[in-house]
Amino acid sequence: MSRPVLGITMGDAAGIGPEIILKAFQGDRLFSLCSPLIIGSLPTMEFYKSLLGVDISFRPINHVSQASAESGTLDILDLGLIDTDALKIGKTDPAPGKAAVIFTQKAAQLAAAGRIDAVVSAPLNKEAMRLAGYSYEGQTQIFAEITGSKRYGMILLLGSIRAMMLTTHLPLREACDAVTKENILEKIELAHESLVAFGIERPKIAVAGLNPHAGEGGLFGREEVDETIPAIEAALMRGIDVVGPMPADVVFLKARDGEFDLTLAMYHDQANMVAKFLGFGKVVTLLAGMPIIRTSVGHGTAFDIAGKGVADEANFIKAIEVAAELAVTRKRSGDEHP
Amino acid sequence: MSRPVLGITMGDAAGIGPEIILKAFQGDRLFSLCSPLIIGSLPTMEFYKSLLGVDISFRPINHVSQASAESGTLDILDLGLIDTDALKIGKTDPAPGKAAVIFTQKAAQLAAAGRIDAVVSAPLNKEAMRLAGYSYEGQTQIFAEITGSKRYGMILLLGSIRAMMLTTHLPLREACDAVTKENILEKIELAHESLVAFGIERPKIAVAGLNPHAGEGGLFGREEVDETIPAIEAALMRGIDVVGPMPADVVFLKARDGEFDLTLAMYHDQANMVAKFLGFGKVVTLLAGMPIIRTSVGHGTAFDIAGKGVADEANFIKAIEVAAELAVTRKRSGDEHP
Repeated sequence: MSRPVLGITMGDAAGIGPEIILKAFQGDRLFSLCSPLIIGSLPTMEFYKSLLGVDISFRPINHVSQASAESGTLDILDLGLIDTDALKIGKTDPAPGKAAVIFTQKAAQLAAAGRIDAVVSAPLNKEAMRLAGYSYEGQTQIFAEITGSKRYGMILLLGSIRAMMLTTHLPLREACDAVTKENILEKIELAHESLVAFGIERPKIAVAGLNPHAGEGGLFGREEVDETIPAIEAALMRGIDVVGPMPADVVFLKARDGEFDLTLAMYHDQANMVAKFLGFGKVVTLLAGMPIIRTSVGHGTAFDIAGKGVADEANFIKAIEVAAELAVTRKRSGDEHP
Repeated sequence: MSRPVLGITMGDAAGIGPEIILKAFQGDRLFSLCSPLIIGSLPTMEFYKSLLGVDISFRPINHVSQASAESGTLDILDLGLIDTDALKIGKTDPAPGKAAVIFTQKAAQLAAAGRIDAVVSAPLNKEAMRLAGYSYEGQTQIFAEITGSKRYGMILLLGSIRAMMLTTHLPLREACDAVTKENILEKIELAHESLVAFGIERPKIAVAGLNPHAGEGGLFGREEVDETIPAIEAALMRGIDVVGPMPADVVFLKARDGEFDLTLAMYHDQANMVAKFLGFGKVVTLLAGMPIIRTSVGHGTAFDIAGKGVADEANFIKAIEVAAELAVTRKRSGDEHP
């Protein structure tokens, strides 16, 4: 099978996006996994190449069909948009903010049309995006808009663990309020559909408890009995392979040991403690509920270190690897079930 | 300095207590750290020694002053109380339940009187204890009663991390309600006093946040702003070295790296996820707020495997090591500041 074509967006030109792209594609390894197509600005990439003294070649192309990456050469779909001479590294500026949105829109369009196999996003800066007049919450909403997705979410890839969060940046009290049968069932279904779409035929999903010992049968809290178990039962009725609720300090260890394809966390810190404590500093995020494969990194534009050559590309490499692997799996699954 | 004398209670005779004691004292290592004094039943220890085929000698003594453990010989303060012929291994029974309470009371009395340097408790069975007519919640309350302690708690030893929990087995919603200035300040003070009593001169205490990102300045929840920070400020005013609130997924990593002497967790799963995820399966608990050193294990009587020779003594060994080390530290600190 040929290598999947990954559309890699350059992100905010004033941030560390160009740098981590350049560093990630040093050597042959990632080229052996994918055909990268950088969606961004050629002059900006040239600028950072020279600034950082990186050994790599660029080949500007006008159309995806021209992409034929060879090791050491990055194909670039140059959308212009950046006045590189006026670029203020590490500064929040609407011009690169706007360009980053357009790079993302272009990548989403190409992926939705099946012209590229997956998207990997370098970070954009939300403030710069807003200064440029966009009201998107983040890149996710750009992909949702272009793919016409109504029910979507984010899968966290924590090493070998896939996790989804019922809620993210809510006060813990409100996160407790959000533990409802309806919300849990919706996330289970979203997780199930996404995993199937990614080529996992019969995914096994686990649901974490909210309370100590997952409520110990109602003794330490009622949510598991009143909400979580009914949601799990409803999901089982719909043919989804789902187990739980299990205590948070148990379910993620089982997940790490490969017992589940995805684990649903009840609140932010449950998933984030797993990420940090199990040593998966490098969180890769994966869109769920959209007809495309798109991964991103756990960090932002890191304006404070932009242009200094000290940005760590490891997280971005992981995002590329995951996207390439998923694209291969989906292609293979598509070949088997045409 | 001579080895500290540890009073080791046998726990419930129908559980794994006798077995883990016998296994722990195989070889010379623990004898080099402490003089063990088993507080329990000699016939029961003989019974398990023979059942498990363990190579060790017993020396019954009538008074602590006779203790002079040599490697390979366990001094036993035989309180009788167990009809070993009638012992039903692995069964909940009021007779060994009652005996276990009396062993604990005896150990508490000896420690409170300064006759032994520390206590290490094998597990008792709470149901057997209740069947025997006691209304103690657990062993902690026995120690509190005998030492006359009003304000006390539990320190969890998770590898190199010391943690205290603001609440334990409460529904998460109620745990949120318990995040008050008063409660937090009380725990900080209790932690501080205990650590000082254990010989740590100026302990540094960290406080975890309740909400995502420790509330992000009130954006993701108000408890940190309204309760935790005022508690920390009050503690600082009282001369206690305390920092926080810090996000849960950050503070425990710093704790692992040795930045704090104790970390206050806001709820059960925060501390328990640390215990499990950072690889500290073996949780040792240490009483706080009492004028004695007492450690115990994270597990119970394990009736399902009692008498089968498969109980893992590693946790108990850790509890013995910690008690011995604390006893040495306190003695040394007492010598320095008489």
